[in-house]
Amino acid sequence: MDTVAGSKYRFGPHEIDERQVFRTSPLSFAIVNIRHTRPGHVLVCPKRLVKRFADLSPDETSDLWIMAKEIGARVEQYHRASSLTFTIQDGPHSGQTVPHVHVHIVPRRKEDFENNDNNKGMMNAKNETLDLDIERKDRTMEEMAQEAKEYRALFS
Amino acid sequence: MDTVAGSKYRFGPHEIDERQVFRTSPLSFAIVNIRHTRPGHVLVCPKRLVKRFADLSPDETSDLWIMAKEIGARVEQYHRASSLTFTIQDGPHSGQTVPHVHVHIVPRRKEDFENNDNNKGMMNAKNETLDLDIERKDRTMEEMAQEAKEYRALFS
Repeated sequence: MDTVAGSKYRFGPHEIDERQVFRTSPLSFAIVNIRHTRPGHVLVCPKRLVKRFADLSPDETSDLWIMAKEIGARVEQYHRASSLTFTIQDGPHSGQTVPHVHVHIVPRRKEDFENNDNNKGMMNAKNETLDLDIERKDRTMEEMAQEAKEYRALFS
Repeated sequence: MDTVAGSKYRFGPHEIDERQVFRTSPLSFAIVNIRHTRPGHVLVCPKRLVKRFADLSPDETSDLWIMAKEIGARVEQYHRASSLTFTIQDGPHSGQTVPHVHVHIVPRRKEDFENNDNNKGMMNAKNETLDLDIERKDRTMEEMAQEAKEYRALFS
């Protein structure tokens, strides 16, 4: 990810382009995902660069999850999904690749769940998978900025 | 799961034996898992029977996740693990089988992550899986009560 001069948002070693950010709260921010597994797969992070979930304060924990809950409901509805997966991969042996706490929110649909071909490593009915960091092509900033713009409108 | 006369804790349609409960807070409770994927795989639930995460109040959300964070840190240390997976399968098309919000906490270790044979559907390095409801033999209440007793001691 390119460095963006003056961006306020860091995601581990990456400086985040503000066009990718679609929601902020006092202690957290939400971004669209450079490599999403499913439409509407977004991330919510604490503003403070903290590697492990246990290192968050109670206020940061509450802020992060109240925001994740609200965002999940909106992206589920927006993508006409019927379920959500919320996951923190917490630490290097859980599949975490960026050492900065982040909640994955993934909208899920009946069709996706039943049709394994659509799933790009995410899931199937009998053998639910959670491969959130499989090799996927990075999206362009223009694609991400457009998506973030749509999500911002959900909260206006 | 058998019905337990007078138990205060419900997990969806199941009445939970208090011997399975190892931690409570004003709005949440934590139980050992009848079919765990890995040692230390536990569940944290809101006391109120709520199906979807979006239906939790802000107070319930904070209480649930502050408790999950604290429990994760203790079970990770107790099981000499190095990472954790926190997941809510939220809704029927995310793999949720019990219609009552619950956070899965699963301690993860380098060995587990590298050795797929140990994983019982949970994970491997290249194709992280999240099959939290594969067919597994139910454990006995005696086994679960013993485990809950060990975890209670972590907080005393």
